[in-house]
Parts: sequence; C-alpha cells; structure tokens
Amino acid sequence: MAVAGTGVFAEILDGEVYRYYADGEWRASASGKSVAIVNPTTRQTQYRVQACTQEEVNKVMESAKVAQKAWARTPLWKRAELLHKAAAILKEHKTPIAECLVKEIAKPAKDAVSEVVRSGDLVSYTAEEGVRILGEGKLLVSDSFPGNERNKYCLSSKVPLGVVLAIPPFNYPVNLAVSKIGPALIAGNSLVLKPPTQGAVAALHMVHCFHLAGFPKGLINCVTGKGSEIGDFLTMHPGVNCISFTGGDTGIAISKKAGMVPLQMELGGKDACIVLEDADLDLVAANIVKGGFSYRFYSERALAYLMINSGQRCTAVKVVLIMESVADTVVEKVKAKLAKLKVGTPEDDSDITPVVTESSANFIEGLVMDAKEKGATFCQEYRREGNLIWPLLLDHVRPDMRIAWEEPFGPVLPVIRINSVEEGIHHCNASNFGLQGCVFTKDINKAIMISDAMETGTVQINSAPARGPDHFPFQGLKDSGIGSQGITNSINMMTKVKSTVINLPSPSYTMG
Amino acid sequence: MAVAGTGVFAEILDGEVYRYYADGEWRASASGKSVAIVNPTTRQTQYRVQACTQEEVNKVMESAKVAQKAWARTPLWKRAELLHKAAAILKEHKTPIAECLVKEIAKPAKDAVSEVVRSGDLVSYTAEEGVRILGEGKLLVSDSFPGNERNKYCLSSKVPLGVVLAIPPFNYPVNLAVSKIGPALIAGNSLVLKPPTQGAVAALHMVHCFHLAGFPKGLINCVTGKGSEIGDFLTMHPGVNCISFTGGDTGIAISKKAGMVPLQMELGGKDACIVLEDADLDLVAANIVKGGFSYRFYSERALAYLMINSGQRCTAVKVVLIMESVADTVVEKVKAKLAKLKVGTPEDDSDITPVVTESSANFIEGLVMDAKEKGATFCQEYRREGNLIWPLLLDHVRPDMRIAWEEPFGPVLPVIRINSVEEGIHHCNASNFGLQGCVFTKDINKAIMISDAMETGTVQINSAPARGPDHFPFQGLKDSGIGSQGITNSINMMTKVKSTVINLPSPSYTMG
Amino acid sequence: MAVAGTGVFAEILDGEVYRYYADGEWRASASGKSVAIVNPTTRQTQYRVQACTQEEVNKVMESAKVAQKAWARTPLWKRAELLHKAAAILKEHKTPIAECLVKEIAKPAKDAVSEVVRSGDLVSYTAEEGVRILGEGKLLVSDSFPGNERNKYCLSSKVPLGVVLAIPPFNYPVNLAVSKIGPALIAGNSLVLKPPTQGAVAALHMVHCFHLAGFPKGLINCVTGKGSEIGDFLTMHPGVNCISFTGGDTGIAISKKAGMVPLQMELGGKDACIVLEDADLDLVAANIVKGGFSYRFYSERALAYLMINSGQRCTAVKVVLIMESVADTVVEKVKAKLAKLKVGTPEDDSDITPVVTESSANFIEGLVMDAKEKGATFCQEYRREGNLIWPLLLDHVRPDMRIAWEEPFGPVLPVIRINSVEEGIHHCNASNFGLQGCVFTKDINKAIMISDAMETGTVQINSAPARGPDHFPFQGLKDSGIGSQGITNSINMMTKVKSTVINLPSPSYTMG
Amino acid sequence: MAVAGTGVFAEILDGEVYRYYADGEWRASASGKSVAIVNPTTRQTQYRVQACTQEEVNKVMESAKVAQKAWARTPLWKRAELLHKAAAILKEHKTPIAECLVKEIAKPAKDAVSEVVRSGDLVSYTAEEGVRILGEGKLLVSDSFPGNERNKYCLSSKVPLGVVLAIPPFNYPVNLAVSKIGPALIAGNSLVLKPPTQGAVAALHMVHCFHLAGFPKGLINCVTGKGSEIGDFLTMHPGVNCISFTGGDTGIAISKKAGMVPLQMELGGKDACIVLEDADLDLVAANIVKGGFSYRFYSERALAYLMINSGQRCTAVKVVLIMESVADTVVEKVKAKLAKLKVGTPEDDSDITPVVTESSANFIEGLVMDAKEKGATFCQEYRREGNLIWPLLLDHVRPDMRIAWEEPFGPVLPVIRINSVEEGIHHCNASNFGLQGCVFTKDINKAIMISDAMETGTVQINSAPARGPDHFPFQGLKDSGIGSQGITNSINMMTKVKSTVINLPSPSYTMG
Repeated sequence: MAVAGTGVFAEILDGEVYRYYADGEWRASASGKSVAIVNPTTRQTQYRVQACTQEEVNKVMESAKVAQKAWARTPLWKRAELLHKAAAILKEHKTPIAECLVKEIAKPAKDAVSEVVRSGDLVSYTAEEGVRILGEGKLLVSDSFPGNERNKYCLSSKVPLGVVLAIPPFNYPVNLAVSKIGPALIAGNSLVLKPPTQGAVAALHMVHCFHLAGFPKGLINCVTGKGSEIGDFLTMHPGVNCISFTGGDTGIAISKKAGMVPLQMELGGKDACIVLEDADLDLVAANIVKGGFSYRFYSERALAYLMINSGQRCTAVKVVLIMESVADTVVEKVKAKLAKLKVGTPEDDSDITPVVTESSANFIEGLVMDAKEKGATFCQEYRREGNLIWPLLLDHVRPDMRIAWEEPFGPVLPVIRINSVEEGIHHCNASNFGLQGCVFTKDINKAIMISDAMETGTVQINSAPARGPDHFPFQGLKDSGIGSQGITNSINMMTKVKSTVINLPSPSYTMG
Repeated sequence: MAVAGTGVFAEILDGEVYRYYADGEWRASASGKSVAIVNPTTRQTQYRVQACTQEEVNKVMESAKVAQKAWARTPLWKRAELLHKAAAILKEHKTPIAECLVKEIAKPAKDAVSEVVRSGDLVSYTAEEGVRILGEGKLLVSDSFPGNERNKYCLSSKVPLGVVLAIPPFNYPVNLAVSKIGPALIAGNSLVLKPPTQGAVAALHMVHCFHLAGFPKGLINCVTGKGSEIGDFLTMHPGVNCISFTGGDTGIAISKKAGMVPLQMELGGKDACIVLEDADLDLVAANIVKGGFSYRFYSERALAYLMINSGQRCTAVKVVLIMESVADTVVEKVKAKLAKLKVGTPEDDSDITPVVTESSANFIEGLVMDAKEKGATFCQEYRREGNLIWPLLLDHVRPDMRIAWEEPFGPVLPVIRINSVEEGIHHCNASNFGLQGCVFTKDINKAIMISDAMETGTVQINSAPARGPDHFPFQGLKDSGIGSQGITNSINMMTKVKSTVINLPSPSYTMG
Repeated sequence: MAVAGTGVFAEILDGEVYRYYADGEWRASASGKSVAIVNPTTRQTQYRVQACTQEEVNKVMESAKVAQKAWARTPLWKRAELLHKAAAILKEHKTPIAECLVKEIAKPAKDAVSEVVRSGDLVSYTAEEGVRILGEGKLLVSDSFPGNERNKYCLSSKVPLGVVLAIPPFNYPVNLAVSKIGPALIAGNSLVLKPPTQGAVAALHMVHCFHLAGFPKGLINCVTGKGSEIGDFLTMHPGVNCISFTGGDTGIAISKKAGMVPLQMELGGKDACIVLEDADLDLVAANIVKGGFSYRFYSERALAYLMINSGQRCTAVKVVLIMESVADTVVEKVKAKLAKLKVGTPEDDSDITPVVTESSANFIEGLVMDAKEKGATFCQEYRREGNLIWPLLLDHVRPDMRIAWEEPFGPVLPVIRINSVEEGIHHCNASNFGLQGCVFTKDINKAIMISDAMETGTVQINSAPARGPDHFPFQGLKDSGIGSQGITNSINMMTKVKSTVINLPSPSYTMG
Repeated sequence: MAVAGTGVFAEILDGEVYRYYADGEWRASASGKSVAIVNPTTRQTQYRVQACTQEEVNKVMESAKVAQKAWARTPLWKRAELLHKAAAILKEHKTPIAECLVKEIAKPAKDAVSEVVRSGDLVSYTAEEGVRILGEGKLLVSDSFPGNERNKYCLSSKVPLGVVLAIPPFNYPVNLAVSKIGPALIAGNSLVLKPPTQGAVAALHMVHCFHLAGFPKGLINCVTGKGSEIGDFLTMHPGVNCISFTGGDTGIAISKKAGMVPLQMELGGKDACIVLEDADLDLVAANIVKGGFSYRFYSERALAYLMINSGQRCTAVKVVLIMESVADTVVEKVKAKLAKLKVGTPEDDSDITPVVTESSANFIEGLVMDAKEKGATFCQEYRREGNLIWPLLLDHVRPDMRIAWEEPFGPVLPVIRINSVEEGIHHCNASNFGLQGCVFTKDINKAIMISDAMETGTVQINSAPARGPDHFPFQGLKDSGIGSQGITNSINMMTKVKSTVINLPSPSYTMG
C-alpha cells in the first residue's frame, strides 16, 4: 500500500524535508531551513517543509509569468485534457494523500480519502466548464445605443489575468487548493500556490499529481515557508495578478495591502441556524449535529463523504437561533445524537478528532470559559485532552457572551432562544460576518421571506449550510469575503474582458 | 369625449365599413363585401369590416416583404423609438379603443380601458428588451472542440425571419395583438395581422396608432375577412415566414398545413387548481373566483386592471381538484363570493357579462346539461339570458362528465373532490391540454414537488393561473401549444441565427 | 481484426438480415421482409435490413414513451456518464463500423474511420454541454414590469420534449445520427432512429455501442424499412414529440404534414463561393477543391479526417462566383489540383469514389448534359463508370443552365464569372436555398459587409463552407431548413420551457 | 436664457459658494471654508464650493446607508421611472450645466452641451438595462455535479452592494459621473459622489436634476472639499461598499488602501495607434487628429458631439507607431489638418482650448522640452499662452524620450517610426498602461491577429480609441485599471450574488 513520500512521490522528498515546486522541478530551498508540521493528535512534529526565501519567490514569479504566456496560446480542449489527466492521477493516489490529511490536520481517515476523490471530480468538472466559459464571448453592435448606426462590431472575450496566487486554508488543504488551481489553469493563468502550514504536505503531494500529468514547466508552482518571511512578500508581489484566498481575518489585511488586482476572499462566518416552530424537529436536530459538529455527507458515489473536521469549517452552523417553544425538544434531540458521536483519533475514523493546533484549542476554551462565567447552560460537561475537545452544546447563550458572536472553529455550539422570527433575523444580521445561514420551517412563504431578509451570501432552507455542490455559487457578504466562488464564478473571476471593435466605413446590417 | 371611428380615427372608416390597412394606407376591399360584427350584449350588428380578397392578401404580402428589407437596416434604437411613440399614442387613445372592446366582446368598461393601457406598457417594455436581444450575439472560438486550433472565430447574431403572420384571439384583441406585433417589429420583421372577427374593430384602431407613430409603409398590415376565404390562404401563404397564433383548436390544423416556418401557438387549456388540506382556504376561494370567473388584478398603476371576461381566458381556472376534507368549506366560501358578483352589461362595468357569441353560450349550456344529467351538484341555479350566463359552480363533478375535460370558456366551473394529491396530479396530467395549473398549499416541499409533477407549461403556487407579468415565460405543453411566449421568448422566437466565421491562416489566441 | 456483424456485433445480425432495435432488444421484423442495401461501388447487394411494420413502429413508440419518463428522473451527471461510456465504446469499435461506411456509401476507408472517431468526440462534448444547459434555469422577479411589486418569483427551467424522431442522411449516417441522439438523450428525451437505407447497417452498429453502454431499455430505438410503409407513418405519428431531420426535399413535405411538434430540418444547399480580385488565389483554389470535391480536414488528432464524399455534402461548394479578372488563374489552379485527385474505390482510400446510387449518378449526368447543350466550358472531359464520376469543373456557366441553381450532390462544380460583387451576392440570394456561403477577400470591410449581405445561415470568410466544429451554430435559411443545429442549439431545440411561479402574500426584496 | 446657479438652481448656491448635497438637502459646510475653482482660460477664480469636514462625510455615510435599505425594497420599474425622469430633467437643463463645463474645464461650448445630452441618454439606457440585469437570476439544480441527486434547487440573484463611492475625473465631470450614478442606483445602491474640483459645479447642477426628479432623501449625496482633508477619509471609510473611480495614478494608491470592497478603476492610458503600410492613409490622418487632438464625433442626433478636450482624454491616441514607408505621407496629412484647427477659447467653440490647470500645462511643456533636447522633429513650432497650448506633432520620437511612454494629457502627440509590425506591438506591450489601442490596416488577418496580440483592454480596428458607445465593454489592463465598465458591466460590478437553496426531502425532477 502506498505511503506518503514514497513511490512516485519519492522525488518530492529531500531527506526529511519535503521539497517545494518551482519551474517544473522539485527543489530544496537555499535557505537551508525548514518549517515543522505538528501532528494535532500526537502534538509531535510529523513532517518538515522548505522555508523558501524571498529570492526563491521572485524566481517562481518570473517563471510563472513566462509559462503563462505560452499556456494562453494552448487550445482550450488541450488544457482540459491535461486537467482530466491530473484528476485521474489524483484519484489514483488518494491513499498517500489522505494519509497526510490524517497526520497534518487530524482529518478522519475516510473523510480524508473522500476529500481527495471529490477534488478529482471538481477538477474534471472545472475543465469542462472552463472550455465553455472561455470559448464563448459576446458580439455587440453599435446601433443599440441612441444616435449610432451599425458600423461598429464589438467582439468581447474573456482573457486570462496572468499569475494567480492561491492561498487555501488548513481544513481542506487539497480540495480548497484545487478549487483555485482548476479555474486558474483552464482560464489560461499560471499559478503560485502557498499552502497552509498544516496541510502543506498533502498539498505538495497533490501538486505532484499535476506534475505527473505533464503540465508545462513553470505553469504550476508551490512555495512553502514562514508567513513572516514570505507572507506579505507574496501578497504584495508586483508579479501577482490575482489573489484567491480562503481563511480567516488575514484576508482583510491582505485586501488592504494588495495592489490593483482582483481579489477572491472567503473568510470567516458565524452561520446562524434559525429554527421556527413549524419545523421538522428531527430534521433540525440532525442538521445541527451535521452542520455544527460532524458533517458526513453521503452521496451515491461510495467514497464521496465530506467531513466537517470537528466544527472546523467556514460554513459550519455556528449559532442556533431557536424559537423558545421548540427549544427544549431540539436541545434534547441534539444531546442524544452528540452522545453517540465517536470522539478520538482520525486514524480510527472518529467523528470528532483533535482541533488543528494547541492555540486553536486554547482559543475555543477561552470562549467556553467566558460563556460559563456569564451563565450559559452546559448540555455536556466540558472536556478536553490535548487538542481534542469533546462536543459541547451551550444552551441559553445570550448576546453578551463572546460565543454569541465569535467563531470557535471547533466542536462547540451555542444555542440562543428567541421569541420571534424578527429577533432571529436581527441577531443574524447584526454579525459582521455574512457567509451562510439556514432556516428551518415548512412554510413556503416564511422560508422565502426569511431567506430574503438574512444578510448572508447564501441561505439554506431546511438544511445546514454547505459550500457544495461545487457548481453552486458560494460567497460571503460583509467581513466574510469578496467575490463569488463556485466553479463557474471562480473561472469568471480569474479572467478579464478584452474587446476588439471592427469599425466599418459605412453601416452594415446582417440580412438587411 | 373621443368615440370610435371619429377624430383621428375617421380615416379608418369607409361609410359604415371599417377599412383594412395595407402598404401604409387604409383601404376598402375590391370585394365590395363586408363582415358583420355582432354585439354579444345586444345580439345586433354593431360594426362591419372589409371582406378582403386573396388578391389583396397577395399584395399585402408583397409590400410586407419589401418593407421588411428596409426595416432590417434601421438602427435598433430607432425601431425602439417608434415603438415607444406608438405606445404613447395607444395610451392616449384608450377611450375609443376601449369602447370597441365593450361593444365587440362585452368586456367590462374599466377592464377594456385597462387592456389598452397595459398594451402600451407591453409595447414599451418589448422595445427595450428587443434592443438588448438583437444587439448582442455570440463570439465562439474553434479550439473548444477537440482537435481544433483557434483559427476560426464565429460571430453569430440574431436576424429577423421576414414576414410574421399574427393571429390573436377575441378575448384580448388588442393586448394579444401587440404581444405579437411588438416582438415582430423590434426584431426587424414586418407584420400581417389577421384580427379575430369579434375584436377586429378594436384591433384596427390599435393599428392606426402605429400608423400615426410613423412606421414605414408596408411594415404593418391588417387584413380582415372571412376565414373560409382568406384563413388557409394566409396560413399557407408562401410569403409567410412565421406564424404567431393564439386561439383554439384551429391552431392544431394550422400546424399541420403550414410549411417550414417557425410556429408560436397558444391554444386551449384546462387549467387545474389543486387544493391541499393545509392551504389558506380564504386565499383559495378568492383565487377560484378570480381565476375562474372574474379576474380583476389590481396593481399600483391606477388603471392597470386586467379582466377575465367571464371565464373566457386561456388561463382561467377550469377545474378545481380539491381534497375532500376541505371541499365543503371552500365551496361555501366560493358560493358566498359568487353571490356578490355583479352580472349584467359591460357598459355597467359588471363582473360577469355576456359570452362572445350565441354558439359559445350554446356550447357552455351543452356542458352544463351533460353534467346535470350525470348528477353534478349545482351550487347555483343555472340561468341564462341571451348570451349572458350567470356564474355557476358545479360540485361533485366526476371524470365521466364532459366538463371534467372540456373547456367551457364561460363562467361555469367544475369541482372534483379528490382523496389524495396523486389523484389530483393524475387528473391534471390525463388532460390533452397542458397550459397552466396551480396548487394551493403552505408546505414548501409539497409545493415544489407537485409543481414538478404537473405536466403544464407553468404551475402557480398559491395563486390562480395567469399569463403575466408579460416578461415571464408563458407556454403550453401537449395540445396547449408550441413555442414559449412572454416578451423575451417571443422576440427570440421571431428571429433566426446567422453566423459569420472568420478563418485565419494560422491560430491566434487573444493575449497569448 | 474486427469485422461488421461479428464479435460483439453478432447479436445484431439475424442470418443475413440485420435486426432492428426496440425496447432494449435486437429483433427480427414480423413482416418477414427485408430491404436490400446496394454497394455503390460494386452495385451488388451488400447487406439486408429488416422491413419493419407499422405495428412494430407503434410498439417502439410506446416503449419509448415509457422509458422517457424514467430517464427524465435520472440525474444529469448519470446521463452524461452513460454517454461518455457510449462514446468510448464507439471509438473502440471504429473498424467494423467504418467498414460498413465503405461498403454502404463508398466512403474512403480513412475517412470512414475518422467519421466514427469524430462521432465519439461529439457525443462526449454533447454530454458535458447538456449537463450545463439542463442544469441551469432562470429566476425572474415580477417587479421588472410596470405596475408590479416583487411578490412573484418565477423559476423557469428546460424540460425534455418526450420522444425524438431522428432521421439522418446517407452521407454521414453515423455522425449525423449521433448529432441528434446525443442532444436528445442528455436533454432527457427518448429516441427513435430511422437511419437512411444507405448507411443503415453502420447506424445499427453505432446503436449497438449505445446498447453496450447500458442505457435503459426502450430509451433508444432504431427501426429500418421502406419509406412507403413506415415513412409518413413515423413522421405523422402522434407519439412523436420532436423531429430532427437531415436530408433533401423530403424535409419540406414532412414539415407540411407533421403536427404541432418542434422541427429541426437541415435540407439542401447551393453554397456559393464568391471570389474577389484581392483574394489569395492559392487559398481559393485549395478551398474550391476541398469544398467542392474532396474535403480532407486535417486536425491534430491523427485520425480526425473528415471527408466530403465526392461532393455529396450539404455544405459542399456548389457554385463558384468569381470576378472575371482572376477567373482564368483560379480555374487553371483548380484544374491542376483536380488532376492529382485519386479516382477509384473507397477501399483504396481514393479521393473521389462512386456516388451513392445509380439514380444519383444519372441525375448528375442530366445536369452535366444540360450544361453542355447550353455551352458551358468543360475543364475536363466528362467521364463516368457505373456510379463513379470523375471530377468535373464547368466554366462559363450561365444562369440559364440548371446547374447554376440545382444541387448535383456529386463531383461536378460550376463556375460563374461575375463583373461585380453585387452580381455575386445577387446570384447567391436568388437561390431558394440558404445554407452556407463563402467569400474570399483580404479586405476586412468587404468581408464583413458581403457576409452581412449574403442570405445564408452561415458565411465563411476565407474558407470553404463547413458544418463544424460541432459546437458552432449551423443553420439554413429559406428552403435549407428550420431551426439551428450545432451541439448547443440542438440540445436547446430538444427541450421546452417549464416554469413554476411562487406567489408570496406580500412583496419580498432580497436584502431589502 | 438659463444661467448656472439661477432659476431652479438658485437653491444650490449659498451666497458665492455652491452648497453640497446631503440627506436630500443643499447645505453649507460647518467648516466655513470653501475651495476655489480656477477658470483655465482666464486663470481667475470662477466658482467656489464647500470644503466639507470629515464629520459631514460621516453623516452623509450614515444617511446613505439608511436610504439604501429602503431603496432596495423599491420595485425595479419604479427605480427606472425615476431615472428616466432625472434624464429628462438633465436634458432640459443642458444650457446652464454646459456653461459650467465651459468655465471650469474650458470645454468648447457645443461639446459641453453635447456632454449633458449624451449623459441623459446614458441614464435612460442604464435604467432599462438594469431592470433586466437585476430582474433575472439563475436557477441551478444539484444533480449536475457527480454524486448528487436533484434535491437542491439554488436560486441565485444579484443584490446591491450598499453605498457606492463615485469619483469621476475633471474631463467629463457630468458624463463620467452619471456613468457611475446610473448603474449604482438602478442596482439598488445609494451613492456618495466626490466630484473633481475642476468640474465640481457642473456636477452639483447635475445632482440637482436628480434631486428634482424626486429620489428619496439620502440616496444620492455629493460632497466637495480638499483631497487632503476628505480624500483618504472617503476612500478608506468603513461605510463604503464599492469604489468607482476614474482618473490618474491616485487610483493605484486608493487600491492599496481600500478595504475589502469591489473596485472599478479606470486610470491612465498610453493608447497606441499602429499604422500598417496597406492602411487607408486619409482615414489614418483623420483619426490621428480626431483621436489625438480634437475628437468631434458626429451622430444622427444633432447635438450628439463628443469632444476630446484638447487631448485630455483617457482614450486619446497618445503615441503613433507607424511603418516608415508611409510615415512621411501621414505626417504631412496630419500637419495639414492640424493647421486648420481653431485654437482659442471654449466660449468661441474652438477646437483646441486651454488645458485644465497651469501645472498640467507645465507638465506638458516638460515632456516637450525633453523631446526637444533628445532630438525629436517638431512638425509645428511649440507655442503656449497661459494654459493654452497649440497642437503639436512630434515626429521621429525614440524610446529614450519621456513622451514615448508618458501621458501628456494635452494636444501634443509623438510619432515613432517602426520597421515591422512586431516592433509596434512590442512598444505597445512594453507600456505599463493597457487601456486601448488601435490598428489601421485593410487586411482582415493582420487586423485580427494584431488585435489579439495587443495587451490593452480594447483594440479598435480602423478607428481611433473611444470609450463609447456606452453599452460596449470598456476596461484597462495593467496599470490602466481594474474591472470592466460600459453600462452592463458597471451594473454587474455594483451588485453581488446572493443565493437561496431549497433543500427537498427527496429528489424531484421537473416533468419526470
């Protein structure tokens, strides 16, 4: 059975340190330094990656720029063909990549495999979508506008932006990387990937699958290192023509420093779950557990699980706003379900596994203690071992508690009891986040009107928030981001309009 | 106060017979014959129109063909400007045109005015929509398809079809005429209008408003006459490039004889109203009365009423399929509302006015008698005076009665009690018609899933069927028609694709 | 090496007669009769197919109707997956299918293989295109139209038509069949295929590849037989919901008899090639030979040849309209090229092979003799052996000759010398056909303005007419057809709009 | 005859200082200070405007935020109706507004009137375009993506961003303001306008026309003042949800400081005019004069002139790259035309009028002197009086001269002689700007391929660069901007996607 860093992946490893990928080659950094990746479960160093230098970043940018020019002259169907090939190779090597996910971010074993498989599907779908988006432009005529004859024919089409900088987060280091890489490449851009530290080794394996597919050298690049050294250097680099970032507050800082380049930012959320009195309460309870703790989405494709990673998901349910009259019932149902979740190590495919770092665990604990002091009801005893936090439902949370507004990014979920729908909408809209939200009601009129009233990028009616399916638009309002994602929107975002106007000496009307 | 056939309309009248409109002029037919239009209320001849000859039709076709060529070379914004002008003139002359509607089809006075005003809005909206649809084509590149380089640039745009034959029905002789004329003209086509006999004079007045707006001669034409003389002659005429027809079964016959031209047919319907147990029963009763007997749609624009004309509407509710448990309540509520409807003459702005012809009234009576014999429950006594039929709700109708399947096109509505949703859907889908349908339920899941299951062009959730607003798509399945209407779809339907392919000697990639 | 009717194809053969395909099974007709297919080269019977009965057609229609209902409930990605599988199986079995093409229609050997391979590409592209077209509808709100609040949300989507009848022509019996089958299936329709007599066996093999892919039984059906028995019976069958036909004048007759169903007709053409004085004359000569006699389109994919089949192509160049001053030069260049064409049998992969039937050859000879009598200049001696006609360029053709207007559908091409561009455009537009045309000039203004002036579905600038690449729109004006083809347009054509309107009790504005 | 600041405009003037517009009222600043506007022709103070304070900006932001919420709940057709009304009022008051343009920016009298009229057309077109863009969303189904059933229906629509900050430049202070105001309003946003100092009074008059049309208070606001006081304060204000800026380098600085808000930037350009040997040299000369010095675009609408303002236009021709063999001829033709231009005051409707400020004139002079020192050929004697600079063509310019790369923004144009097309493309692409470019050639292949090769947002074939017609896309690459403009693109840019997902308990297929 394949193991990370062996077999076809042997060449990405330099002794004990994983190489970075530049100009079509796997390289060790001239810095001679490396960055340690700590396993969240064992809290021991699991892997090491190169600590690249600014000079290495400069070279990567140069080769990305050169490679992009040639790639933009590659027929669309050939670009798609290479992406299909990469998708197949990725699926083929799901085992060693999943292994990295288990070790780096404590993703449960089955879900780790599922993330890789689903990523392959994403790349293939993106390839075909891009062929269509890039292959069709507009033809406009001048006589639409008052005062003009038809003597100007405007041909507008979509052209690549140049070099795309992709910065995915730790919770889906493969899936949220390919959701940037696929659109960038099919649209004719080249790519510089800066993976998260936690998840970097999984990402390097994934990049190698693209390498094996035979993309031109320099088109795809992956640099690793310390944020203090190359973070701002990358995001403010004049060679960057687009930034696609998923993560937390850092995104806002990046926005304020980045130059005049298109930004696609998907930052935090505080997704509310509004529960009305007429809701299907079993459905509600199932979705609160699924949405807030352990999202295991089952589809027909046997391996297509997708896991929430112990609440560490942008679109996790992060606050329940429930009508008082049904609150007790739902809280009981949720408690019963939480009691059945398996808490433990990712290797055992537990439902709840350690959170990504000790500082994350500490932050979560801070929110819990604050809620405790201010009188929240603990539905379970608070329990933590190392980075592993047992699932915790906090009832009777009030707006003066930090957890009513802040993201724990862990298996802790506050319940706020409301007395009117308006109260729920008001709490939702008072947040500085606006990623997703959900509402549970059977009533068609209320469902639509509450969805219209919620100031979030997406509202799910009768289901927990979710990013997918991947062709749906996905966007955050307010501090939750800028730009819309989803396969179609991401491809469009990574292009720019160019137009050619044919000026005729006298008007000409087709068939006139 | 303006009167039909006087003032600016004096020139469309030749003695006692209204002229037809050809090559930009108002003319008397060489036939020396005329067709009488009987007032449904008085059952006396109200107006006379020309009985045009086949030779006159031939000449109209010729001038329409010539005029179209020049019109196709007119800038889009100028076409729109003329349509806006015609819309304004139409609204300005709403009074005399509404008078014709009252006398020809017994449309209640206020609703007659409303039809004219709404028609003006429709023409203006169509003008602006068409500027956008005709002004934008596609640019396609060859390298989307496997095996191709990018050496072919395909510019495809929408071009006019040529001469459009428009045949509107009697119930909206102005509104359903302009819903064909507007799209035809903005798309660059010329037009031959064959109005219904009942409503012909209103249509001639409307055409004169376009004449006054200053459209080029020959572009718009309107012929009147006997179906036996010029009906098939028109629809099978080789000069016709498109047929847009609204009406009854004749449409199917036309389809089978017409040549290779695009058809837009909106024929009959048997729109079902499915009522579930959880529905808002007051809303249901109001919509049954509105949808089945007297649709008075109120909008913010003071005059924007639109009237159902005593059940004479394609999208009237034509059968109620209601769950047994709520049937008694709804029937009682409907009965109470029907009792309040004003039955009488259109001049008095009654809610229920005479149906359009004696043969229509006889047909309706036949359906009523059949139901009586087979045991339907009469919620009111059957009452008829001349062409005036009092509103009648028939309860406990069963599938063996003709009225369960046939369109009365009058103020008679059957109620079938059902014991399951499936039974309702089955009855709806067993019809050979498939225009619209509606379902009343508060439940979002049932609403969507029943809508998906109903085999009709449109399903209204929690409202009676309706054609508008005019920019919504509108279409019938099965024997209810072919092609989709609504402003956007009608414009598209009246165009054809033309493409120009620029073949380059070697591949060229934008920004490559 | 695989041979037609053997191996996996053994089950489609019943003794010496090929079976027809109904309800997922290969069957012999109850008629006990068969239809002979004569090899154009040997003029001997090569194959026999079933002469199906009307009763068998009825049964096919019934099972197609039933199968369609279930198919419409199949997820889009699953429909696509099956089509990808069929495409792969088709390419895998290119050899025996190509063999049929050689024997049935005398298609040169390499081109026969190429037709099959290209058909596989077409099916795959269609699958992905359809996922996108069917997966996206429109959301419209009511407050766009004057007088309305936003209380109506209209969800419109594309739904299948039902049973599609596909009738492809003899010249591309595989490729022009899958260009109908692919769109029909991905859109959720079922299919009844009536292949041309010449080409029927190739089509049956192709259908078997779909069978092997595992489509549900009844979804795809293929009936063979005599036109006199089942031709009109099929096209007028009440079970048919759409007709897609490619062929000759028969299409016009079908249009006049078919009921109210969407029609896609691609009929004949008389594609003009207008040559201006500033054209690249070598390019012109090469395209005249390619476009009029032997189109061998080379692409990067080694096997992607596509062959014109000795002038037997709808989009062949069928009349050259050339400026007098450059006519002599071009005629000389064309003569030189024609002298190099290999004339002979398809097995030898000749450039010019026998035309499809003796009656075709006789018809061509009639046109040639008429031109001879009326004084056309023969650039080569007229030569015919059986169905094999040597390539013939007729210079100085005048409008009084039949060949100036009629389609030979064989390797005979008339040249008309013109003295002005207007003369050329006039001749082109005087035709009752309007399929494609081409113009050769370097001048950008003339190119665009002449293209605008030519009344044909497509105009090629600086290349011979061509149907592909397959995602480009393809359509004929006037007697050349109705509806637009190309992958996208064909899928759209095989769908219908259905809308659901959610009516709210009070207006609701998103984010308002 | 109407005069600025009188009649209906009297209320916008407070003594000698023009008021600013906030919360539906015309106000004097609490600062008690004002900013002087110097007439470029007389170099005397012509007008004074309020020097608003940061506190006043804060209040404006607050009221804009409140007003936006209500506006987002206004039906689309009503928003459009108000914009049509504003457009009519604007055209009605063209005289006093044009007077301001003459005095503030020395725009020639007729062109000043034309700017106002054209702005009215733009607003009306925008209103209708927006009704369509905002009124239509997408309906997506889940089963497009592998592994999903159809149990999720995604309804996505476009929603307003909130408060739009619009910063237009001095050269079209009315037209480039309404090109931001129109899209912002129809899309449901509120607006804060910061006009350029030069042009501020024209802008205030224009804003008053919107006030007179009856828009809700707080929806439109206009603040004036010193950049040092309120410039960064505005662009970095947390209440701003979108910035639309047209101007110079300041835009890049704004991009680097602005938060996570959508940016539409149209900055400088160095539009190249590439002239090939086969070009129509008279057309070239006419376009160089039109494009580089005095663009007087004549359309059918009698007043629809649009003036270049003495080279002060983003899309002016700013460098001519001409093949050596035709350079002498073209230079002579241009010289002859320049000699005929009328140089003088805007009141006299001169072709060339003073540039906007003394510092601009000094900058231009600096470029001229640099070129002189480095040996450029002066086709005319350099002449300047105050801010008035006579038109000057500099031949034999070389890449080492500043004017080869920098924008003079005045009536001075460099000619660089080239020996190959590649040399021209290389110079064009070496610029850090990428707004527009043009190429003159008759050859269709060269035209398309050179257009593809030029790295600019738009390439005009055979005409000078131009922003309009206003519905065409308009965008700059590289340092020329971010985001695409043109009516449609601007509206889209000022919206954001919001989606609602209806999750069904089991799959549902329309018509399945």
